Amino acid sequence: MTQLSNFTYDELTLGQTAQYSKTVSAQDITLFAMVSGDVNPVHLDPEFASTTAFGECIAHGMLTGAIVSAALAMVLPGPGTVYLGQSLRFRLPVKPDDTLKVALEVIDKKDRRHYVTLDCKVFNQMDKLVASGTAEVIAPSRKLTIDAPALPQINLAD
Amino acid sequence: MTQLSNFTYDELTLGQTAQYSKTVSAQDITLFAMVSGDVNPVHLDPEFASTTAFGECIAHGMLTGAIVSAALAMVLPGPGTVYLGQSLRFRLPVKPDDTLKVALEVIDKKDRRHYVTLDCKVFNQMDKLVASGTAEVIAPSRKLTIDAPALPQINLAD
Repeated sequence: MTQLSNFTYDELTLGQTAQYSKTVSAQDITLFAMVSGDVNPVHLDPEFASTTAFGECIAHGMLTGAIVSAALAMVLPGPGTVYLGQSLRFRLPVKPDDTLKVALEVIDKKDRRHYVTLDCKVFNQMDKLVASGTAEVIAPSRKLTIDAPALPQINLAD
Repeated sequence: MTQLSNFTYDELTLGQTAQYSKTVSAQDITLFAMVSGDVNPVHLDPEFASTTAFGECIAHGMLTGAIVSAALAMVLPGPGTVYLGQSLRFRLPVKPDDTLKVALEVIDKKDRRHYVTLDCKVFNQMDKLVASGTAEVIAPSRKLTIDAPALPQINLAD
């Protein structure tokens, strides 16, 4: 079982950084289509996608946003973080089997309500910037170390 | 088979609106955890979630972002839209079985590169605003009517 831990507001320092990586599988793109309802064939149908400017299937832009949000929730500040807002610019397409690396940096802290602003940059395995933006969160007040629940096995069938 | 169609840049008018609805199931939250990697128990473990300020499991904030992105890709402007950027404020928690309604409105058009800005508001089934923000897209140049690919059946097992 994986243990998750966090950084409390008091532990966070300006300039503090963290990274989070996730490989985007073709199955992830299918699951994102189910969750969001965006079934555009540019994401799901290689034959159709080959006729577009991208030449092959691409991940939904907001799938990258999902991975940014996971970086905040899993790593910095981690469990207990309250997500207030996010801005994102989508700069390059993400394709199946790309490995994304989210680089986070604490760029502002407001003592009054424990608001923290983080710079968010997402790179692919060629170190190209695929997305960037800013997150606003309320950082946790309490130190937490918790077990990550196991996820179910998944089977997809036509 | 569902047919998808779009609004081209020339067809879009300032003040044009559209809506898109999606019910967030407990399974959607599990799938979003798989796709993003955010396995925080506040989303997945009802027992743990009952000890938090929310009192029960809540959806990942960016799952609402995923549904906003689907509204843009499926309805307004629809297929062929290029997603440039998104800002979001998360205002209220979303819980399993909540039905979200995304309300989109065209608020700016820039002829030079076919950039379009849309106001995005997300309401729950009690008409409470759960999230809001702004999307920037390149609207399609060509009219498209395309078939939505069928999604596979999904089975989850412990």
